[in-house]
Parts: sequence; C-alpha cells; structure tokens
Amino acid sequence: MTTYTRPEERLLLGPGPSNCHPRVLQAMASPTMGHLDVKFMAIMNECMDLMRLVFGSSHPVTIPVSGTGSAGMEASLVNFIEPNDRVVLGVAGLFGERMVDIAKRQGAQVIEVKAPWGQAVDMDELEAAVSEAPTKLVGLVQAETSTGVYHDLKPLAAIARRHDALSVVDAVTSLGGMPVLVDELDLDIVYSGTQKCLSCPPGLAPLTVSPRALDVLLNRKTPVSSWYLDLTMISRYFGKERFYHHTAPVNMIYALRESLMLIAEETLEATWARHAENSTALYAGLAALGLPALPRPDQRLASLCVVRVPDDVDEAQVRNRLMKNYSMEIGGGLGELKGKVWRIGLMGYNSSARNVNYCLTALGSELKAQGQKISVDAALKEAAEQFTIPV
Amino acid sequence: MTTYTRPEERLLLGPGPSNCHPRVLQAMASPTMGHLDVKFMAIMNECMDLMRLVFGSSHPVTIPVSGTGSAGMEASLVNFIEPNDRVVLGVAGLFGERMVDIAKRQGAQVIEVKAPWGQAVDMDELEAAVSEAPTKLVGLVQAETSTGVYHDLKPLAAIARRHDALSVVDAVTSLGGMPVLVDELDLDIVYSGTQKCLSCPPGLAPLTVSPRALDVLLNRKTPVSSWYLDLTMISRYFGKERFYHHTAPVNMIYALRESLMLIAEETLEATWARHAENSTALYAGLAALGLPALPRPDQRLASLCVVRVPDDVDEAQVRNRLMKNYSMEIGGGLGELKGKVWRIGLMGYNSSARNVNYCLTALGSELKAQGQKISVDAALKEAAEQFTIPV
Repeated sequence: MTTYTRPEERLLLGPGPSNCHPRVLQAMASPTMGHLDVKFMAIMNECMDLMRLVFGSSHPVTIPVSGTGSAGMEASLVNFIEPNDRVVLGVAGLFGERMVDIAKRQGAQVIEVKAPWGQAVDMDELEAAVSEAPTKLVGLVQAETSTGVYHDLKPLAAIARRHDALSVVDAVTSLGGMPVLVDELDLDIVYSGTQKCLSCPPGLAPLTVSPRALDVLLNRKTPVSSWYLDLTMISRYFGKERFYHHTAPVNMIYALRESLMLIAEETLEATWARHAENSTALYAGLAALGLPALPRPDQRLASLCVVRVPDDVDEAQVRNRLMKNYSMEIGGGLGELKGKVWRIGLMGYNSSARNVNYCLTALGSELKAQGQKISVDAALKEAAEQFTIPV
Repeated sequence: MTTYTRPEERLLLGPGPSNCHPRVLQAMASPTMGHLDVKFMAIMNECMDLMRLVFGSSHPVTIPVSGTGSAGMEASLVNFIEPNDRVVLGVAGLFGERMVDIAKRQGAQVIEVKAPWGQAVDMDELEAAVSEAPTKLVGLVQAETSTGVYHDLKPLAAIARRHDALSVVDAVTSLGGMPVLVDELDLDIVYSGTQKCLSCPPGLAPLTVSPRALDVLLNRKTPVSSWYLDLTMISRYFGKERFYHHTAPVNMIYALRESLMLIAEETLEATWARHAENSTALYAGLAALGLPALPRPDQRLASLCVVRVPDDVDEAQVRNRLMKNYSMEIGGGLGELKGKVWRIGLMGYNSSARNVNYCLTALGSELKAQGQKISVDAALKEAAEQFTIPV
C-alpha cells in the first residue's frame, strides 16, 4: 500500500452523520489529557451541564456513553431490563425495530405496537398494550430516522406515569434540533447521538437517566449483561467518587462540549426555530420538485425530510450523481422503503437556508436530467416563501 | 456557566492515554464523511490493512470496535461465550479480573489461574486448568497495565491449540509497542485500544478474529447478548456487503489510520526496538533514583515501567507536584497496589530518550524535595548508558 485516500469535503445532507461545525473539529484536535486529570474532570462536568441544558434535564446522571447512538440505545435498555420483564415498544421504523432486538436479547417479554412505515405509532394502542399487564419499560423513537416520522413525547410520558412504567426515548435525530424537554414532560431514560443535530462527529451517545430509573437500576436482582455499559459502575466515574471504569474518549468529549456550547450560544429556542423553518422550506421546495413528503404535516421531523421518489426516477443514480457532481450526500431508503424514498437531513450546523437552496438546485437539476418536467426556480421560490429569519 | 476550562498541554507518562502524535490530531480534524461513502470505505479498508500489519494478522475480520479498549475486551468475550461455556483466564492484575467479570456476566463457568500482582501467570498452571475439562476459551492479558507485567503469548497459543480452545488476548498496552504476532503464534482473538502505543486518542478498539473463532461465532446456539458489539452483524459492514449496522466513528477512524501509518513509516521492528530501549533506560534510571522495578526483568513491558515507591515518600504528593510543576502525569497504583507503586508509561509517540530524561529529572527533583538521598545526575547517567539508538 503506497497511496492513501484523502478525506473529502462533502455536504452531508443525509440522515447523519452531518457536517461538523469547524469549531468542533478544532476543539477535538486539542491536546489529549488524562481521563482522571482534575482539569479534564472540569471539562467533563461542563459537558454534562451543557447536556442537561440541551436535554432540558436536571437528572444528575446525564452522561456521554462511550460509543455511538446505538450504544446509547443499548445502555438505555440493558441497564433497566431483567429477564422476563415486560417491555412495550412503539415501532414505526428501523430504529424502533432495533430497540425490540436489543430488548429481546435481554430476555424481555417484548410487546410491539406497530405503525406502518411513514406513520406515527397510535398512542391509544400504546397505552392499551401497557395497561394489559404490569410493564417495566415503555419506549419509542422520538425521531424515526428511517422514515422522518416524529412522535410527540407528551402522551408517552403520561402513559409511563399512569401505569408506573419507565419511559425510554430515542432522541438521536432530534436532540439539538427539536425540543426533548426531559424535565417538563417527566421522561425517564433518553439517549441521543453526537453526529446529527449536534454538529459533532459520531462516537458518543448523550444519555440522561431519571432518579426514578436509577432507583430501578440499583435494585436489580441480576447483574447488567454488559460490563462496558453498566451504569451502576459508570455512574461512579461521573459522580464525586471519580472511580475509574474505562478510559473516557477524551478528545470526543472536547468535541461534544464545543458542539453543546454552540447551541447554548445560539440558544435552544433559536436552534429549534431554525431547524423548523429550514425543514418547512425544504419540504415546500421538494414538493414543488414533484417529491411529496412521506409523513403527514403534524408528524414531520425538523431535522430530516423524507420524500417519495417518482416511479420513473432512478433514485440510486440521482444520489450517485449528486455525490459526483456536487459532493453532496443525501440518504436512500432503508428496509421496506429501500429505493422508494430520499432522506434529506438538515441537521445542526447544516440546517441553513443556504443548504436548502443548494439541495433544491442540485437535486432539481439532476431530476431534470432524469427527464422530470420541473422548475428549479419554482422550487426555490416555494422555499423562499417559508423563510422569516433573515438569511 | 460563563467560563470554560481549556484543555492543557500535558506530558502524559501515565498508564494511558498517552500523548497523540500531532499528525494524528490533525487527521482527526479532517472533514467528516458519510460512513457508507465509497471514499470513506476506502479509508476504512486502509485502516484495516494497517491494523493487520501492526497485529501481524492476516485475519479478514480485523476491525476497529466503536468503543474504548474495554469495549474491545467485551466484544472479544461476549461474541464467543455462551452460557455454561468453560473459560480459563490467567489473572495477574486488574485487567485480568475485568475479563473474569465480563465472562461471568455471560454465564460462563470461569476458572481463574491467578498470579500475585507483579508476577506473570504460570503457564503450566494455566495448561493444567485447561486440561481438566473441555474448554471453549483460554485467555490472558499480554500487557497487564495495572502491574507492568508482560506475558509471553507463545505458550498461551500452544495451550489453545493442544486443547482445542480459542485463545483470547488483551494487547491494549502492547500493540504498537511490543510484538503481538497474531499469525506467527496462531492467536485467535486479540484486541487493543488506541490510546496507548498507537499515539491516538482513546475511543476505538482494534480487534482481530481468526477464521477458526469466526466459525465458532457463526455456529452459536444463542444470540450474542450485545447488539452493539455483535460481530455476526458488524462483520457484514466490514465485508463486501457494506451492510449498515451502526454509524462508524468516522473522525476517530481518520486518527487511527494516521497513527498506524506512522508505525508503518517507522517500521514495526524499529518501533518495538525504540520502546524496548527507552523502557530499559527508564528502569535503569529509576533504579538509580531508589525506585526498584516491580516485575522481574524477563516479565517487563516495553511500554510501561512499574516501580515500588519508598515507604517514606508521599506518593500522591509527588504525583500532584509533578502535575503542578511540570504538567507531567504519571500513574499511581490500582487495587492492592494503590499507594505502593508508580506506573510510568513510555508509549508510542511518548517513547523517546527525551521523555526518559524529562521524567528522571522531574521525578528525581521531587524525590529530593521529599528528602530522598539520591542523585539525578547518576540516574541520567545510568539511563544514558542504555541508549544505543542515536538520540
């Protein structure tokens, strides 16, 4: 091997990872410190405080899990499930299915409440399933990355309280882009990933755990099957004790802290408004390009637009040409939506009017090359009408 | 919160993390790419090729696990252990104990072959334990970071072959600093971490798995308890199929690839020789400062020197003063060696004659401040006599 491939500058408008903020990449390249260094501990504490801000959580156990979002999902389930526990999960796409897979591996009795891909889980059905028998955990994916569908967390939290269950929420594609509101809604276990709306590279999973859930954890009858993700031990590192568990991914913590600082500087509310406006504009423009939204208007994410691909368009070819001609990545469909949808993310740093316009221009141009009778100008005009924040 | 803590420039001469090479930090700050981008796949393939080089392994399944070294340990055990499997583990310190903990959580019948902390496991005892009953896995820690003790892997590999077991090896503190020789010794499952002799930040765990071990994995009767670390699925992402499992920690892969390139440029043999020489020099200098080695000469690591602290020295105070006066981190003892030893790492980029001299000068000065009757000049002279490679 004599030549090496150079990382390319891409515009990452897929389902994640999204582009990192330059300040985040710069912070990540700061000198590595020891994971037990008091100054690094101060940095970790600041990172935890900022996570609480973005989660809207006051939970003392609010930590970065040392793995990607899926490690956050696994940590959120394996710590609280014991064999034969009843777990009710709303499933509206691939990431809901992943929760089911993980819960089953722990020996849980899993009840799935399914929605067709592209629609949200019916909360009455979810409550009916929970009410049938004593339930340990009830969970769903707030932002289903495989379909672009959004779930309101308020009814989930209420179901958990009414039936004395713990709520568990996947906020991988929402945290930093849409409200999560852990305290306000009284959510128990919520996890996310760094590579979506936080403008940070993949590699960490922010996680917040309520005192109620922590109590359940500390009263387990069986050990947690995972040593690496065992929160009974990990929380001792993040607590006053600073007990060594595993080496924290120091430079990724620098990156996460910087990414959360960026949100704190912009303010959460402004960040959410920016995501909402840009996704509304993109959906409007995409519709004008002949690409109808998959989710209905009240079930759409502000971070990820999912649209149906016309039958006479070679969707893989369009994505390949976007990459070749514009170094622009958009996502294709997963599972049963493979070949049928595009998933276009406007996440974190990438959620900008500029990127809405780049995307519509490039995608429109490629659709015209595919013989679609559309107008890029009309699409840009539709999008422009949605912008209220000065560009 | 209005002020933020700045990462400090430290000289990390503890048990890890060690300082990163500047080229590694720079590579890590390259633009994030999609984890399914063909160009990123090329980078990943190069990273895997370089891992094979450093492991001395031709195993197709040679991958970076998306977590720290402990995630590599967990992946190396949970994928191959099913409930009631017999597992024999050599235990000579904290990381051997950690292997036991993880194996037990998988329901294994674990037989521990113990050595006193500071000594290596007796290989005849290990073989006797394996020979008592059919054994699935036999493992140990090549480089025991808690004691500085080195285990020769040749007898381990031979025991595994003679008794039809799989060998599993922790090479976290050795890979890149000492020979691991996976193919030559015919080892099955070997994992490491990025933050020791690879001059890379913590966050990934290089792992290599023999076809023999892969066959055992693919013929499991029960599912792997961990979804996140399930190699039956992960290997499909690293194979030709490129099946999406979880988002790879893209920027950490850039860092790992760069760190492995540095070793390839220097050559493995030169890297090993450098580690051997600098640790020999440091041990000689430390002895002259009145700090005797914990392990005997033939059981010492080339990456980490562990020495006894004199009874009349306040070891925590010395470490605190090294940090305060020199921004230099060295490690204290863990477990039963707490307060009794110092662990001084010369790993990767940090293994240099310069750092040997820095360490002896600073530590000698602080020992004199503690009233020790020693000569820094004599220690530097002892160390200098070991250097054959021009400084």
